[in-house]
Amino acid sequence: MQEYPKPLAKLITELQKLPTIGQKTAQRLAFFMLKLPDTETAQIAEAIAQVKQHLSYCDICGTITDTNPCYICTNPRRDRQVICVVEESDDLWAIERTNGYKGLYHVLGGVLSPLDGTGPDELGINTLFQRIRGATADREPVREVILATNWTTEGQATALYLIQHLETFEVAVTRIAYGIPVGGDLEYIDEVTLAKALEGRRKV
Amino acid sequence: MQEYPKPLAKLITELQKLPTIGQKTAQRLAFFMLKLPDTETAQIAEAIAQVKQHLSYCDICGTITDTNPCYICTNPRRDRQVICVVEESDDLWAIERTNGYKGLYHVLGGVLSPLDGTGPDELGINTLFQRIRGATADREPVREVILATNWTTEGQATALYLIQHLETFEVAVTRIAYGIPVGGDLEYIDEVTLAKALEGRRKV
Repeated sequence: MQEYPKPLAKLITELQKLPTIGQKTAQRLAFFMLKLPDTETAQIAEAIAQVKQHLSYCDICGTITDTNPCYICTNPRRDRQVICVVEESDDLWAIERTNGYKGLYHVLGGVLSPLDGTGPDELGINTLFQRIRGATADREPVREVILATNWTTEGQATALYLIQHLETFEVAVTRIAYGIPVGGDLEYIDEVTLAKALEGRRKV
Repeated sequence: MQEYPKPLAKLITELQKLPTIGQKTAQRLAFFMLKLPDTETAQIAEAIAQVKQHLSYCDICGTITDTNPCYICTNPRRDRQVICVVEESDDLWAIERTNGYKGLYHVLGGVLSPLDGTGPDELGINTLFQRIRGATADREPVREVILATNWTTEGQATALYLIQHLETFEVAVTRIAYGIPVGGDLEYIDEVTLAKALEGRRKV
């Protein structure tokens, strides 16, 4: 049996390191790249090689950015009195896509997870407290901290930890609402979400 | 709304050029790469950039290879009297994985498609005729030509074209068998395949 030529075998192996890409998809992608013009494959390779070189973490909010501080932290039109706490930069971009939030962010870069050795020191939690105390660059009193960690065991534990420690600050602490997704059908919603939706009911 | 930082947006755009990768998958892959160590992303980028640099087409059979002629054409243990004609190099590797074929190959690099302007000259058809005539490097009389183009309109047309033109050569021409896949359930097989399977029935 004749194996793939080495450069092709290597590419297939490398592509399989990526999530959702198994052997068959890796083969299909590799064959597709073989047929692309050289300039196209060069562009893809360059984009991958460079994605981290020009990115860093914002010193203020911790998001991934190509300027430091990031565009949001330096934007004078954002409401500097509200900070939304998220786990990762992609959560920040997801909220940005709603076009409905004009405050600042704080990206933890993870969640509390004692088993993995991730404590408050590993996350940007102290930086968050300093921001609220007004000890960092954006010296405006913080009015509200919105906790938007995910509704997972660790995300909830992280939110609870923050709620406890933020009690000593003069700041409103809120948690984003959990409930039925818009367009969701009650029949197909899991029980925990449904219970949360009932619990979080509001007067109309 | 704050967009993605530029290098990240560029990577997401580039990844979307690949088949089966839409916006969501491209985002997921890009975020995953952001979290990989630099050496890992460098390896992926290098594998993509180099896949075509070290590969060429075999002068004899036309397959994609990192040596020229390819390992199969130069392998003294292969049966040089049988040539299996396939559309693309990945068809060759698919047949190699069966471990059941010990002859040589001829890779057309496509199929006859008048609408796309692909005629016999664009495919490696003349080279195939030369090989059978013994006008090329592997000068051993060819006993059998196996046509393994796909069972599509173009694949069939290409096979028919070859059958007609190979009549003038002293060579057995065969077509690979089409029928029920092993493990396939008659109930769920399309009618054309089922008809082919009945037509191609053999004495047991």
